[in-house]
Amino acid sequence: MKFVTFRNSNGQPEVGVLDGASIYSLASAGIADMNQLAALGAAGAVKKAKSAIAAKAPKVSAKATKLMAPLLNPSKLLCVGLNYRDHAIESNMAIPKVPTIFSKYNNTIIGPGDTIILPKHATQPDYEAELAVVIGPGGKRISEKAWKKYVFGYMNLHDVSARDLQLATTQWLMGKSIDTFAPCGPFILSADEVADPHALNIKCTVSGEVLQKSNTKHLIFGIPKLIAFISSVMTLEPGDIISTGTPAGVGFARKPPRLLRGGDVCVVEVQGLGKLENPVEVEK
Amino acid sequence: MKFVTFRNSNGQPEVGVLDGASIYSLASAGIADMNQLAALGAAGAVKKAKSAIAAKAPKVSAKATKLMAPLLNPSKLLCVGLNYRDHAIESNMAIPKVPTIFSKYNNTIIGPGDTIILPKHATQPDYEAELAVVIGPGGKRISEKAWKKYVFGYMNLHDVSARDLQLATTQWLMGKSIDTFAPCGPFILSADEVADPHALNIKCTVSGEVLQKSNTKHLIFGIPKLIAFISSVMTLEPGDIISTGTPAGVGFARKPPRLLRGGDVCVVEVQGLGKLENPVEVEK
Repeated sequence: MKFVTFRNSNGQPEVGVLDGASIYSLASAGIADMNQLAALGAAGAVKKAKSAIAAKAPKVSAKATKLMAPLLNPSKLLCVGLNYRDHAIESNMAIPKVPTIFSKYNNTIIGPGDTIILPKHATQPDYEAELAVVIGPGGKRISEKAWKKYVFGYMNLHDVSARDLQLATTQWLMGKSIDTFAPCGPFILSADEVADPHALNIKCTVSGEVLQKSNTKHLIFGIPKLIAFISSVMTLEPGDIISTGTPAGVGFARKPPRLLRGGDVCVVEVQGLGKLENPVEVEK
Repeated sequence: MKFVTFRNSNGQPEVGVLDGASIYSLASAGIADMNQLAALGAAGAVKKAKSAIAAKAPKVSAKATKLMAPLLNPSKLLCVGLNYRDHAIESNMAIPKVPTIFSKYNNTIIGPGDTIILPKHATQPDYEAELAVVIGPGGKRISEKAWKKYVFGYMNLHDVSARDLQLATTQWLMGKSIDTFAPCGPFILSADEVADPHALNIKCTVSGEVLQKSNTKHLIFGIPKLIAFISSVMTLEPGDIISTGTPAGVGFARKPPRLLRGGDVCVVEVQGLGKLENPVEVEK
């Protein structure tokens, strides 16, 4: 199932199921936000949604409705650095033996169609297409074997990065956690519909040009390892996001570089997860 | 004024004013959490609290009440690395020209008296006493000159760090954002009562031994600079925390090292901000 957060007629976020041209609202089923739905796990959420639809949940037209980021307020938006071999090499970094985990705060989150705003003083804004995992029931010290139980679903995430700010000190946060720098969506595909998240094509297109093209089979650290590693020290909560890293082809590693600029349109597409399209503007 | 979050008789967090042996609740004045109080700014919050007390706000005994972390759910808990010259030197790092900003998630936050739990696999757990700034009204692109308007108050923060996990990759998050690794409090002192936050003694005592002793006058980047720098790319929200960094004397830089161990008791004391005392245990 495709779970979405949409702006309702009162301008408020509401959780729903995207089904072709319609969105069924889950508000009447008592679901206040995506974190709450995620807590049910993929199977529980699908069951809940099916019974809400059977009970004639209110329906809106998908075309006439503004989709928002599926998760507006996760307790953690975790990212993985250098998790594709070819991207580590193009970045002149060693192939990692331990996952490199960093963070973005929720000020970065925007939805499909929303504008990525480049700070005027950022001279190297760059794109990064990623597959994001959304955690279902939370947990601590999750074993690699048990990983499936903890995944709610998958979505596109665009880890926009300002390289000059990112690399000005050893810590990447200032170049990663810029307002609007984490477009997400358009939907979360429930985990039951993804046979193997380690076999998905992934692509980033900027203003019509395909600049990243790979497959999640090239991940250095797969999802079981990432969940076990992170949860060895942090309690994972429902709705937490783990963005699994980006493949080769990013702008600052190209010769010549292809950085983001005002007027660009970025499209991130992981197989089966729809199109995440966002225009780019320079801050006024 | 000393603003606290305490556990009320229903076991729920409630915001209050600590005044000697009493805590005046601000719940009846419509304050649901500390973020909401912070949004009023220091002057607005003090005014609100004074009128609530004048209107006979309910009062509990401070001694009989469990204090919690003053802020349980900030939208950002930002930290500054290497912000005291002597600590940069002892860490074998260059004196930074640009502030090093990194993050801890809210899974780290605990209150005074709560237990710091060391993961079994962390071999180098360490202490770091810090002065934390709590943001009042939020903002973006705040100028250095305007900084005072944006500060709600100050509190002790203990940036507990597992060096082996912190330094296993270039990004420090895994050693910084461990459950229970950010004790805070016991209270937030409103900004109007701190004449100069850049002239406060700061001290860390572990099991009776003073291991860090310095003054915030030695900060490389002061609070105006930090607020301007961070808000140049991130919108600051009411209740956001900026922990300003730790002075020399941390455990892993000592010869021989003095790392944290089960049974230790840590006390962080910034002048005027009370005592933040937390016992240490190894994870079971």
